[in-house]
Amino acid sequence: MSNLNSTQAIGVFDSGLGGISVVRALIDLLPHEHLIYFGDTARVPYGSKSKETVIRFAHQISSFLLEKQVKMIVVACNTASSVALESLQQKFDIPIVGMIDPGSQAAVRTSHNQRIGVIGTDSTIRSGAYRSAIRALNPDIQVMDQSCPLLVPLVEEDWPHDQVVQQVLQSYLKIFENDKPGSLILGCTHYPYLKSAIQEVIGNEVCLVDSGEAAAAEVQTVLADRGLLNPETGDPGRHKFFVSDFPQKFEETASRFLGLPLENLFKVELEVLESYK
Amino acid sequence: MSNLNSTQAIGVFDSGLGGISVVRALIDLLPHEHLIYFGDTARVPYGSKSKETVIRFAHQISSFLLEKQVKMIVVACNTASSVALESLQQKFDIPIVGMIDPGSQAAVRTSHNQRIGVIGTDSTIRSGAYRSAIRALNPDIQVMDQSCPLLVPLVEEDWPHDQVVQQVLQSYLKIFENDKPGSLILGCTHYPYLKSAIQEVIGNEVCLVDSGEAAAAEVQTVLADRGLLNPETGDPGRHKFFVSDFPQKFEETASRFLGLPLENLFKVELEVLESYK
Repeated sequence: MSNLNSTQAIGVFDSGLGGISVVRALIDLLPHEHLIYFGDTARVPYGSKSKETVIRFAHQISSFLLEKQVKMIVVACNTASSVALESLQQKFDIPIVGMIDPGSQAAVRTSHNQRIGVIGTDSTIRSGAYRSAIRALNPDIQVMDQSCPLLVPLVEEDWPHDQVVQQVLQSYLKIFENDKPGSLILGCTHYPYLKSAIQEVIGNEVCLVDSGEAAAAEVQTVLADRGLLNPETGDPGRHKFFVSDFPQKFEETASRFLGLPLENLFKVELEVLESYK
Repeated sequence: MSNLNSTQAIGVFDSGLGGISVVRALIDLLPHEHLIYFGDTARVPYGSKSKETVIRFAHQISSFLLEKQVKMIVVACNTASSVALESLQQKFDIPIVGMIDPGSQAAVRTSHNQRIGVIGTDSTIRSGAYRSAIRALNPDIQVMDQSCPLLVPLVEEDWPHDQVVQQVLQSYLKIFENDKPGSLILGCTHYPYLKSAIQEVIGNEVCLVDSGEAAAAEVQTVLADRGLLNPETGDPGRHKFFVSDFPQKFEETASRFLGLPLENLFKVELEVLESYK
C-alpha cells in the first residue's frame, strides 16, 4: 500500500448504473478527487446471480480498476458489497469500502429510538446484510426490513413524482406505519432519487440514510487517515466512466443520475474484462 | 426433417420466466403435446444485450433442445424472436416458430379499422419488429406503438389489480385514447397476466392479441400441416422445465405464471449450456 499517492483516482464500481448516485455523492463531498467508474451493464443484474459469480465479477472489475492505478475502491453495489467485500479486501492491497457498513453505522448513529428500517431490492433484503451489520454494531436494535422491487424500474423510467409513486411507496412503507423507525436506510443506490417522495410518505420524524452518502463520508475518513486526500489546490477532479455494454437509453439515464452530461465514456469488451482475475 | 415423429416434445425457450405464459397457451390449446421449456434465468434480460450475443444464446439453447429430441421449437421471447429467428431457421432443420409473425397476423386479421397498437418492453418496441411485420402484411395499416417498462416488474411482483396498475396503464395507453386501434398486440410474454386490466383501460372495442396464444395457434397449424400433432388418444402431455439459474422467488413466480405446481424442474449449468453451439 506504500506506493499509493493522493493524486491517484478513486475507483467506483456497480453492476450497472445505480452506482452513479454514489459518484454523485463523492463529487459533492470530495470535488477534488479523480474518479473512475465501472458499470457492469452487460451483466446486470447481480442480485439474481450466485455468490461465486458475483465474487468472480467483482475481482475482474477490481483488477481492471487497479490497472488504472486507483488508490482505493468503492463497491457501489449492495449485492457485491454483501457477498464480495471480504474476499476483495483479502486479495487487493488498497483500501476497499462497501455500502453496507457505512450505511449501517450512519443508521445506528441517527436512530433515536433503537429501531431501524431498511429498504432495498429483493436480493439485498434477502441477504440480510444490513440486518447483520446493524446487529453487530448494537444487538439491541430492532431491524425492520422491506424489499421494494418496483422502485428501481420507477427510477429508471423517470416516472414523475405522482400518485403512482406515492401509492407504491405507501404500500411498501406500510410496515413502518405503527412502529416508526428512528432511521431508514435507503439500501439501494437507486433510491436516493426518490428521497423526497419517501420522506413525504414515511414522515419527517424518520431520518433517511442515503447509503451512498454514508459511503462517501467513509471514503473521506479512510483517505484522510492515510494521508491520501487529493489536496484542494488544483483543478476539480476528473471523472472517467467505463461500461461493459451500452444498453438502451444508457446515456440519457446515466447523465440524469449524474446530473451532468456524461463525458469520458468508454466501453470495455466482455472478453477483455473476463481476462482479468 | 424426415426423422421427426408426432410423439416427440415441443421445445419452448425464453430469456427467463415470461415464456411460461406461452407454455400455458400451448397446454390450453394442445393438451396432448409434451413440452420442454428452457428459461435462461442466469442471463436474463436479453433486451439489453447485443444482437450477436442474443443469437449466440438462442443457438446454444436450440442445440440443447434438439439434443432432447424436440420436433419443433417455439422462441417464446420477443427479443430472441426479432433478432435470432431467421438465423435459427437457417441452421436447424426442424420447424421454428417465433412470437412476432403470429401476433402480427392475428392483429391484422382482427383489426376492423386499419389501425393496430403494439405494447412491449423498451427493447421490443425499439426493434420495430412488430411494426415491420405488420407493414409487410399490409402497408396501409397505421401502427402505433408504446413501450411499457413498468409492466414486467408489476407482473413479477404480483402487484394487485388496483389503482397503481390502473394509473400506470392509463399513462401508457394514453396515446391510443383519441385514435383507438382495432387491435392491440400484447407484445411481451408477461402482459397476458394484465389482460383484464388492459382491456378495462383501453375499452372493450379494442381486440387484445395475446402473442403467446397466437404463437400456440401457429404451432397447431404447423404441426397439423406436417402430420406431427400428437394423437389425442394417450395421456395428457408431460412437461419438463430447465433453467440456467434459480433466481429468488423463482418457483413461486413460475408456478403462478403456469397456474400449476412446477414439477420436473432442472438446472443446467452455464458451462454446460455454453458448450453447445
